[in-house]
Amino acid sequence: MDAAVLHEHLTIDSESDESVYQQIAGQIEALISGSELASGDRLPAIRTLATRLGLHRDTIALAYERLATEGWAEARVGAGTFVRPSGRRAGSVVASSYPPSGGSERASEVELALAPQVEQLITLDNTRPRYATGDDVVAFHRLIPDPRFYPVEEFRECIDAAIREEGPELFSYASPEGDPRLRRAMAERFRAEGIDRSADELVLCHGASQGISLALRLFAEPGDQIAVEVPTYANVLSAFAGLGLSPAVVSMDDEGADPEALDRVLAKPEVKAFYTIPSFHNPLGTSMSIERRHQVLEIAKRHGVPVIEDAFELDLRFQGDELPPLAALDESDLVVLLFSFSKSLFPGVRVGSLSAHGRALEGLVALKHATDLSDALLLQAGLARFVESGAYDRHLVRMRRLLRSRHAIMNEMLELEMPKGTTWTRPDGGYQLWVELPFEVDTRDLLADAARGGVLFSPGASFMPDGRPSRGMRLTVACVDEDEIRRGVAALGEVIRSRQAVNGRAGQRAGMHL
Amino acid sequence: MDAAVLHEHLTIDSESDESVYQQIAGQIEALISGSELASGDRLPAIRTLATRLGLHRDTIALAYERLATEGWAEARVGAGTFVRPSGRRAGSVVASSYPPSGGSERASEVELALAPQVEQLITLDNTRPRYATGDDVVAFHRLIPDPRFYPVEEFRECIDAAIREEGPELFSYASPEGDPRLRRAMAERFRAEGIDRSADELVLCHGASQGISLALRLFAEPGDQIAVEVPTYANVLSAFAGLGLSPAVVSMDDEGADPEALDRVLAKPEVKAFYTIPSFHNPLGTSMSIERRHQVLEIAKRHGVPVIEDAFELDLRFQGDELPPLAALDESDLVVLLFSFSKSLFPGVRVGSLSAHGRALEGLVALKHATDLSDALLLQAGLARFVESGAYDRHLVRMRRLLRSRHAIMNEMLELEMPKGTTWTRPDGGYQLWVELPFEVDTRDLLADAARGGVLFSPGASFMPDGRPSRGMRLTVACVDEDEIRRGVAALGEVIRSRQAVNGRAGQRAGMHL
Repeated sequence: MDAAVLHEHLTIDSESDESVYQQIAGQIEALISGSELASGDRLPAIRTLATRLGLHRDTIALAYERLATEGWAEARVGAGTFVRPSGRRAGSVVASSYPPSGGSERASEVELALAPQVEQLITLDNTRPRYATGDDVVAFHRLIPDPRFYPVEEFRECIDAAIREEGPELFSYASPEGDPRLRRAMAERFRAEGIDRSADELVLCHGASQGISLALRLFAEPGDQIAVEVPTYANVLSAFAGLGLSPAVVSMDDEGADPEALDRVLAKPEVKAFYTIPSFHNPLGTSMSIERRHQVLEIAKRHGVPVIEDAFELDLRFQGDELPPLAALDESDLVVLLFSFSKSLFPGVRVGSLSAHGRALEGLVALKHATDLSDALLLQAGLARFVESGAYDRHLVRMRRLLRSRHAIMNEMLELEMPKGTTWTRPDGGYQLWVELPFEVDTRDLLADAARGGVLFSPGASFMPDGRPSRGMRLTVACVDEDEIRRGVAALGEVIRSRQAVNGRAGQRAGMHL
Repeated sequence: MDAAVLHEHLTIDSESDESVYQQIAGQIEALISGSELASGDRLPAIRTLATRLGLHRDTIALAYERLATEGWAEARVGAGTFVRPSGRRAGSVVASSYPPSGGSERASEVELALAPQVEQLITLDNTRPRYATGDDVVAFHRLIPDPRFYPVEEFRECIDAAIREEGPELFSYASPEGDPRLRRAMAERFRAEGIDRSADELVLCHGASQGISLALRLFAEPGDQIAVEVPTYANVLSAFAGLGLSPAVVSMDDEGADPEALDRVLAKPEVKAFYTIPSFHNPLGTSMSIERRHQVLEIAKRHGVPVIEDAFELDLRFQGDELPPLAALDESDLVVLLFSFSKSLFPGVRVGSLSAHGRALEGLVALKHATDLSDALLLQAGLARFVESGAYDRHLVRMRRLLRSRHAIMNEMLELEMPKGTTWTRPDGGYQLWVELPFEVDTRDLLADAARGGVLFSPGASFMPDGRPSRGMRLTVACVDEDEIRRGVAALGEVIRSRQAVNGRAGQRAGMHL
């Protein structure tokens, strides 16, 4: 058979005890062992097969992962998943030594050359961990507000009102900066945080992710470096790849970015900016101390290097003292402040903002215009009404209460379930926290067991700019209720303890050989 | 006085016979001649002053332009508009010899270095013609559907239905490719045009402008070249500047891109793609012949160079025979097809699409994800319903009828009003047409007179990749009703004839000196 029509040979039994990904993996295994699929056949892309079967792509990814783990198939970076030669199918995993090949599903007479940055992005995409997100899986890996709490009806009314009140103008192009009414409402909120930026100094953007791309492009061109904390937000690393930038790493201590390391890195002329998440750090969940904030600004000023401050969870503090954003302490116009409604409200509104002064502001407006002219006014005008009406603040009160109680239960469960010596952070805001295991392990290696145990997390290595293994893991309380937190941490504890036991025995055996 | 508070010294009299931009220019002139503003003072940025006065920025731009024309101020590329030294204020325009300075409105202790591409974008932004768009001005320069015909109420109902039916999921992240329902509806429409792309081969994007950026980044990195027709879409040239790309120009004849020129350009290894608008070309309004389409594909195939086909007005044919898009003729997977709803429906929906095969498709998905994760599902889901319900097709019928009659009147008026020897195109679809004057003139020099006469157009030079002067001008029938077309062409005819007369006299004088 032709692997391209694989989907016609697969059937899903929703009554089965076996999970969907197991059914798919099992049936592909049978096609391989029955020689219907031959060695070297390229399995359909995850995305393609998922669409054809009407399934989530994570389900297919998990099936392919099982096939790889069991030696039936192998993923080749940048090329796809291939059926393995039968001689290499003997039980355990064999590292692939195939060079990446530019395979394409459809016979193409001409092989188009993609930009090197795009090749790198595809590779990165294929090596990123995939997650199965069935209803029964505890999703400690998700960093997205819980859809069960989206204020959909109130927002619908705001959109409706915006259309009725503003009419056709709402469907024309906006200025690159976006809706003035929303910018005024946001500037007022920023002022309450001590951030002195007028509505004119805000540029709305298409989510914080676009904001990050624009801020990076403002200061850096391909070949340049950007200073980042270790660990840091995983998608910033994709943004680097897409823009031809590379990270210059700055280690962290308990108070935030290490001043000596930062000083050393910012001294390098090829480093064009420092990207930092001072409050509710992603993935750590911790916040930079006030003294460190002043120090960071002082160092950046000394080197004349701009600071991109990612304040993506600014509105989600649920306990502890307020800490001023760097933008509020900045007296030298060094800081480009990045804000987003994606985590405090919902991502679907696709509204974030950048703010800056002077030439940097002019540059942001010109970049936004050159990138996509403008954003959708309709969503911005709806959001302006939502904020002005007080609905956003009411929503924040609910979210903060929810976060406080979920973090408390998470903490309590970790105390109960984690092996001795495990450490974790106790955030004052946001969704994420960081757990570090007390024994040598690459937490990527725990993912498959955890998934089988019904729980998912983000392995620490995903947040390492150099991809180095980590015994850390990021957990979030974003999309898990109290029962799920209890169940998930218990399952995770079991996976960790059993790995620790295996490690211990391996250590003993290794000791016997000495 | 401090130029930063200029707005406090200006008053607008809405009852005055003088237009607003003239009032502003006059008052600034008085402040300069009264020495309240000193030589070298930097006037506030156009954007800033416009916001502070609650005026459109085009109004300020026009005022600054008058000040420059009359010798009171000068624009320095990349730096802003400055009050001129009085010795240089003697009547006629003096070319500025100042080097660009990195002026900033707010005193900043640290001067941040922006990326070179951004500096180039700011410069481009400052040298682009600005337009005053008062209610009384005939806007032949606007290429945006007429807001008087937006189907706002029908669209509002579709958005409402989408929220009620899909609920919270609509406010979560979409996959980078976007709403499958809309992609299916679009793929079906494409099939009717002979374009064989499945829903899986479409990636939705944030308007065609983002689509252009993504398609360029797919194949090219900074330093590379992209082949473009001369003239071509002005915003593509901004996109080049923002991405560090440069144009490789391909001349055109009556049938489209010149085959010999294209062959020569695509042979250069630094040229990574060919950007073309085969149907209803912008700015020309003409369409590439069927023979030329085959030739273009053959040449691109021979060189292995991808073709980015901008089909931004695909749905707006109002007369003449259907011509297959390049994507429908492409047998070698060379074409990345770009489509948009911005011109056929309205820009505010911010939905365009890219389609491609194989690795190019994978690359587009990875780029879209790295750029902004995903678009707003709400708008896509609303649009899917709008298309499925037939409302989009009903809207197209109205728009095509409107376009046909407006173009007919435009043509009739040009026959009446243009001096002998003037030529213009007669498009079968879309909004724009191209007029070429029968005497030596840079149409940029007619703009100020035209604006005074109550009509605006886009000077040909804006569409020249090398910025060379042109005696062409782009007119559109997008936002002008029949009366406005009559009035606008009459006014334009007057401006052109009087310039021709001046040129004639100058020619005679020049002749006398011989």
